[in-house]
Amino acid sequence: MKRSRDAIITLTTDFGTSDAYVAAMKGVLLSINPRANIVDLCHDIEPQNIPQAAFVLHTAHSFFPQGTIHMVVVDPGVGSQRRAVILRTTRAYFIAPDNGVLSYVVEEACPTASPQPQERELGLGLEAIAITTPHFWRSSVSSTFHGRDIFAPVAAHLSLGVPLGEFGEAISSLFVLPIPRLCRQPGGVLIGDIIHIDRFGNLITNVRGADLPGEGANIEVGGHFIQSLSRFYEQGDELLAIIGSSGYLEVSLKNGSAAAFLHSKLGDKLKIKPQ
Amino acid sequence: MKRSRDAIITLTTDFGTSDAYVAAMKGVLLSINPRANIVDLCHDIEPQNIPQAAFVLHTAHSFFPQGTIHMVVVDPGVGSQRRAVILRTTRAYFIAPDNGVLSYVVEEACPTASPQPQERELGLGLEAIAITTPHFWRSSVSSTFHGRDIFAPVAAHLSLGVPLGEFGEAISSLFVLPIPRLCRQPGGVLIGDIIHIDRFGNLITNVRGADLPGEGANIEVGGHFIQSLSRFYEQGDELLAIIGSSGYLEVSLKNGSAAAFLHSKLGDKLKIKPQ
Amino acid sequence: MKRSRDAIITLTTDFGTSDAYVAAMKGVLLSINPRANIVDLCHDIEPQNIPQAAFVLHTAHSFFPQGTIHMVVVDPGVGSQRRAVILRTTRAYFIAPDNGVLSYVVEEACPTASPQPQERELGLGLEAIAITTPHFWRSSVSSTFHGRDIFAPVAAHLSLGVPLGEFGEAISSLFVLPIPRLCRQPGGVLIGDIIHIDRFGNLITNVRGADLPGEGANIEVGGHFIQSLSRFYEQGDELLAIIGSSGYLEVSLKNGSAAAFLHSKLGDKLKIKPQ
Repeated sequence: MKRSRDAIITLTTDFGTSDAYVAAMKGVLLSINPRANIVDLCHDIEPQNIPQAAFVLHTAHSFFPQGTIHMVVVDPGVGSQRRAVILRTTRAYFIAPDNGVLSYVVEEACPTASPQPQERELGLGLEAIAITTPHFWRSSVSSTFHGRDIFAPVAAHLSLGVPLGEFGEAISSLFVLPIPRLCRQPGGVLIGDIIHIDRFGNLITNVRGADLPGEGANIEVGGHFIQSLSRFYEQGDELLAIIGSSGYLEVSLKNGSAAAFLHSKLGDKLKIKPQ
Repeated sequence: MKRSRDAIITLTTDFGTSDAYVAAMKGVLLSINPRANIVDLCHDIEPQNIPQAAFVLHTAHSFFPQGTIHMVVVDPGVGSQRRAVILRTTRAYFIAPDNGVLSYVVEEACPTASPQPQERELGLGLEAIAITTPHFWRSSVSSTFHGRDIFAPVAAHLSLGVPLGEFGEAISSLFVLPIPRLCRQPGGVLIGDIIHIDRFGNLITNVRGADLPGEGANIEVGGHFIQSLSRFYEQGDELLAIIGSSGYLEVSLKNGSAAAFLHSKLGDKLKIKPQ
Repeated sequence: MKRSRDAIITLTTDFGTSDAYVAAMKGVLLSINPRANIVDLCHDIEPQNIPQAAFVLHTAHSFFPQGTIHMVVVDPGVGSQRRAVILRTTRAYFIAPDNGVLSYVVEEACPTASPQPQERELGLGLEAIAITTPHFWRSSVSSTFHGRDIFAPVAAHLSLGVPLGEFGEAISSLFVLPIPRLCRQPGGVLIGDIIHIDRFGNLITNVRGADLPGEGANIEVGGHFIQSLSRFYEQGDELLAIIGSSGYLEVSLKNGSAAAFLHSKLGDKLKIKPQ
């Protein structure tokens, strides 16, 4: 995969924006590759929320150009024995702790249906490296900030064309978290999960459009019922269901927050019956 | 107007920064024009607050270089019949839903005093296009995220020099919201509005310096009186009035929030009497 | 020091991200130097909190490449007689109001131990200019937004190679705030201060690793005791002490906020006894 000095490097962290942690990483990146095009993917992941980081990365990474380097630093185990890895897919590079933040990326490439956290063997088209060679790291590595001292210099050198193998040894599996699965019950009933709540209070679920029995589906969520799918937000009633921009069923409240209205939280269930 | 691969594209949205919506748009922009210089104008517009977006855009766009492309995605009507448009002024391009977010931009170019929302005929120096040609859009257009699927690819292709006319047909009017007007009462009394409250709690009003009867004006706001204009924040008393950086009269509290102190909210009135 | 059109310009402000103040500065920078590489260092400094801005700048600036221009706009005295200055160190340029935001930068270069705010004579390797020549400013200077009208154009012209002396006259001292000092009591007891609380609720103190009597130190903070240093966050007990990524002793709560748990605030003390 072509790389260049102008490579795009995206950053996904739980650092927020009130400290200078993100800036320190950008300084390190630019010290090594002054022409790197750094893009903030998201810094407002809840502290230590690995599933949220995995989902947010999943909804955005595919829109970036071929060869983009995605750096993910949601890393509660920093300094412990958890591995740091580089994953190469057919589209992009991912640099991250091996703690499950790449679960959706691995799942997209080689879907399975395991309900348990596990070491997952990598399928065709995926290649991974454990970052073990200190040569490219900052000379002094803090035990609490590998984003700055290991991930950033590795990403910057990767963007300059250093071959993957120089950063460590090849590995054949990554740790993945279970991705919440639709449960199919007798009579065509589906039980889904709320897997993300966005800034507007939209409830994003793990139900894809193709999973639905049809536009006449009965959706039950938070004690309320929705009788049909809307095609856009201004259509439909106050509380509406829609196939959102990432292909997932979303529950929205017109000009308001469905999450606040329904008192919903991550992991809450919804039930879908054919009519 | 000259455009180039290094064109500046600014983004104004109500997407916040806790999701990856902004990043997805940036990915699309960079996939089409890898050298676009993307600048976040503001992503913290209140959800669906079109007048706020219009004002924030107004206070910043004139500081950008000639030829800048300003993309605005505050778009509660996404997917409905509302039009998507490109507006070209003598300074810049604006890509936005036709819902009033460009009201101040249109007003700056051709001032009127209509107190009603309306279709406004465009004056000299303004040119507009309804974005109707799908050729430049993403191949699959979500009904809920035109920012990513229509506005971003149109902005990126525009930045590469595609002529305006290739994106759709010329239109002669845009929808504008009424901009709150100063009310002039007998005896030289002015009634103004609070049109923006900034991060510091400063109350920005629709009163311009030239509207004032003089430095001795009596200003009544939130049950308090201010007797004179200050020239900078550290001058004057605790509660002070000043001509702010956008040319509007602001009410500030020294080292505090005037909005919190006066319990002010958007749309509240202030009264100015000559002394 | 080499400068170039591609120079990095970082921004540290208390402007937040809900207004367009930051964008207006970026527009001015790019109007003068379209190739400037603008990096947000931090915009979430508490309004008017000069010591916080000084600390955040301190923890990040050294990671940026040689020749970076750091612009700091935390400026409650804007429009008053406070000076605007450029400071050149052996590594970087700093453009800021002369109100103490550069205290740590000056302290790093020429340490002293004054407990009082003061005019500090600049030591070897530091050079400073009072920004007094309006030639490079915007033609109309607001009395409330020098960041946009003075600092930004000065930074942009500096990035294009304009010699330092053309922006004003040389000065030999800067105003610095006292940096909270460790207090050493009889028996090897240390009294330190909490000087920053980060997004995770980690309490960053002014105690450096080298100050500690050893790994067996007894740390008392907020009525709790910590018996030893941990090497990383997942090690140790719920409440733990660690040498953080900037070299300072931090107090952390595993998977939680130490600040919330201990009801800590900036300026609170901690006590360290040898065991």
